[in-house]
Amino acid sequence: MKDRKLLMIPGPIEFSPEVLRAMGMATTSHVAPNFIEAFGQALEWLRDVFLCPSGQPFVIAGSGSLAMDVAAANLIEPGDHALVVNTGYFGDRFAALLERYGATVTQVLAPALGDAPALEQVEAALKECDFKLMTITHVDTSTAVCADVKGLAALGREYGALVVVDGVCAVAGEELRQEAWGVDLALTASQKAIGVPPGLALVVAGPRAMEAFHRRKAPVGSYYADWTNWLPIMEAYEARRPSYFGTPAVNLVWALNVSLGQVLDEGMDTRFARHRRLSDALKAAITALGMKQVPVSAERTATTLTAPYYPDGVDSSVLGHIKEAGIILAGGLHPDIKARYFRIGHMGVVSASDILATIGAIEKGLAQVGYAFEPGVGLAAAQAIGWPALT
Amino acid sequence: MKDRKLLMIPGPIEFSPEVLRAMGMATTSHVAPNFIEAFGQALEWLRDVFLCPSGQPFVIAGSGSLAMDVAAANLIEPGDHALVVNTGYFGDRFAALLERYGATVTQVLAPALGDAPALEQVEAALKECDFKLMTITHVDTSTAVCADVKGLAALGREYGALVVVDGVCAVAGEELRQEAWGVDLALTASQKAIGVPPGLALVVAGPRAMEAFHRRKAPVGSYYADWTNWLPIMEAYEARRPSYFGTPAVNLVWALNVSLGQVLDEGMDTRFARHRRLSDALKAAITALGMKQVPVSAERTATTLTAPYYPDGVDSSVLGHIKEAGIILAGGLHPDIKARYFRIGHMGVVSASDILATIGAIEKGLAQVGYAFEPGVGLAAAQAIGWPALT
Repeated sequence: MKDRKLLMIPGPIEFSPEVLRAMGMATTSHVAPNFIEAFGQALEWLRDVFLCPSGQPFVIAGSGSLAMDVAAANLIEPGDHALVVNTGYFGDRFAALLERYGATVTQVLAPALGDAPALEQVEAALKECDFKLMTITHVDTSTAVCADVKGLAALGREYGALVVVDGVCAVAGEELRQEAWGVDLALTASQKAIGVPPGLALVVAGPRAMEAFHRRKAPVGSYYADWTNWLPIMEAYEARRPSYFGTPAVNLVWALNVSLGQVLDEGMDTRFARHRRLSDALKAAITALGMKQVPVSAERTATTLTAPYYPDGVDSSVLGHIKEAGIILAGGLHPDIKARYFRIGHMGVVSASDILATIGAIEKGLAQVGYAFEPGVGLAAAQAIGWPALT
Repeated sequence: MKDRKLLMIPGPIEFSPEVLRAMGMATTSHVAPNFIEAFGQALEWLRDVFLCPSGQPFVIAGSGSLAMDVAAANLIEPGDHALVVNTGYFGDRFAALLERYGATVTQVLAPALGDAPALEQVEAALKECDFKLMTITHVDTSTAVCADVKGLAALGREYGALVVVDGVCAVAGEELRQEAWGVDLALTASQKAIGVPPGLALVVAGPRAMEAFHRRKAPVGSYYADWTNWLPIMEAYEARRPSYFGTPAVNLVWALNVSLGQVLDEGMDTRFARHRRLSDALKAAITALGMKQVPVSAERTATTLTAPYYPDGVDSSVLGHIKEAGIILAGGLHPDIKARYFRIGHMGVVSASDILATIGAIEKGLAQVGYAFEPGVGLAAAQAIGWPALT
């Protein structure tokens, strides 16, 4: 029996064997011709994955929080007003970050945990003040709430705010059409649906974001996040010229090149559809097993992540039994309900087989803690969603 | 014939097979019990490698420039005075960084390129002003100049300044006894003598640095670099408790655990001595081949890095021939002399065999561009240094 357990948490996720092979390859120089080619190509491919042909990609060693830092530090000047559309923990973080760089922050809160602010609420806030930028958490990893990025971005544009999307748990899984939807900056971390081990902050900035940066009067608050340092480097790699500011995370960039190639081989529309299909199947199983979810409606639910409440009489100890059955899931993150729910990540190379294995292990775990249900009811509900041949 | 060439640049360096295997392992959760153990152990081992038993280690996803950013952002408050002991390009960078966070910076410049400021010069500057901190670049990667950290740190302490050492091209190769020498903060990047692919910023802060941080009145200028976010995380991993601020670069942390274990298995004194012996041998070869070096004296020369000027009639095209012969070296970095010299990194798992292979390839390259010398004279000079059995 295989010892290795399947990692079904909201990042790091399971990575493809080709990506892991790239991670373990002997490290090249950061100015080796083949590395420059791989980095340059990865930058070009980021535009295709973010669906932002006129965007400027940035790949910087760091976590997803660095990607948020890059957005805030480069776009905010002291005294600016910023609007945060808050759907959970990561909205709170963006607010703290924007304030650090001198912004006055207004937050639009969801009417309830698991919900997202209505467009009307956001529009009312936009009317009140001249915001320089607005942030949206596409999928809040703490709640599995998916924001209506398309609708919110259109509103932000209408009222003249730069639209910034925290796509950490979303990009390359959840549908995002950065340029078509008028998103000025989108960001993510490598270890989510992009499919690369943790350690790269990924940002694509559209022309309006770059113009706002070039128009700055105050120096960027963070030295490491400053585009003044990184823009010439990204331009050089894309022009296939050697350049140096800080040593890139070479192995991770090789892995990024491999993974972005795999993402684009699948095609973005096919990929979005696969994430939706697998998510629908898993969520059908969760419902069939009698569990409610943190997001208040199907419309507000992520396709990269599922956040079920434990059923009555069940607590987080069930996660240990599920792990024994071969699947690693994540506990709660949002402080208000931390002990009452758990999280299942399903992004990147995730397959129908992985989803079935996950449901099977959840059923076994629930049975072991004495929860009453008809064995197989979750698996049958997932199967009934009628997905195509296993992929 | 092997296609793979030996990477003898000042980082990324050659990594051990065990480290590369850790890089390519299936990624674990950042809160998996075995990962928490590996991360916690790596933090403990950093204290041993930096020789700073009372230090607080920080491991954060990012490049070496982030490690510098962490030092400056957490220790500087607007209005502080800082002294930079400048031995090249990375002294300039530290000055820019400190200014970004509101410091007024005084630089003590070396009397000439390739030299370091004399202790008397630095003392004169320390007498002039009440500096909150002083930075020293242990080995400036642009010049291969090695600063007298022990002497400078004693001076800094005497005058009440926090002593910050940029050890990017030094830690775990060049002798550094952080606590015994009174260094309040030392930093490095993973891809240098520590022996892990690029992507981790490593910082060890002593008690006086942590006290200065805790006494701050102004918030830390950079959000991502802020110890307020990272200190609880480092404490949690060391106490073997799960915790979350940003997802650690999991594969790199596993690799760090493996490499630090290998470093400590060798022992710090043995390791410093090996670096010195191999450096002496290579530098003897460079001299025997009629080349001068950027550092003005043996006393001011790094043992992790060698920076020879090209001999008369030779230019950077020789690096292409050396590469053909199997060894990748680096060109110049310091803007004043960029085209006139090259750089050879010899850190980490580097062996006597690697040094001989490097000298052999340099001899072949020089011969191919028509430089006149007695073939083998470099190899013989290195061999005459009388190193022990190949390691």
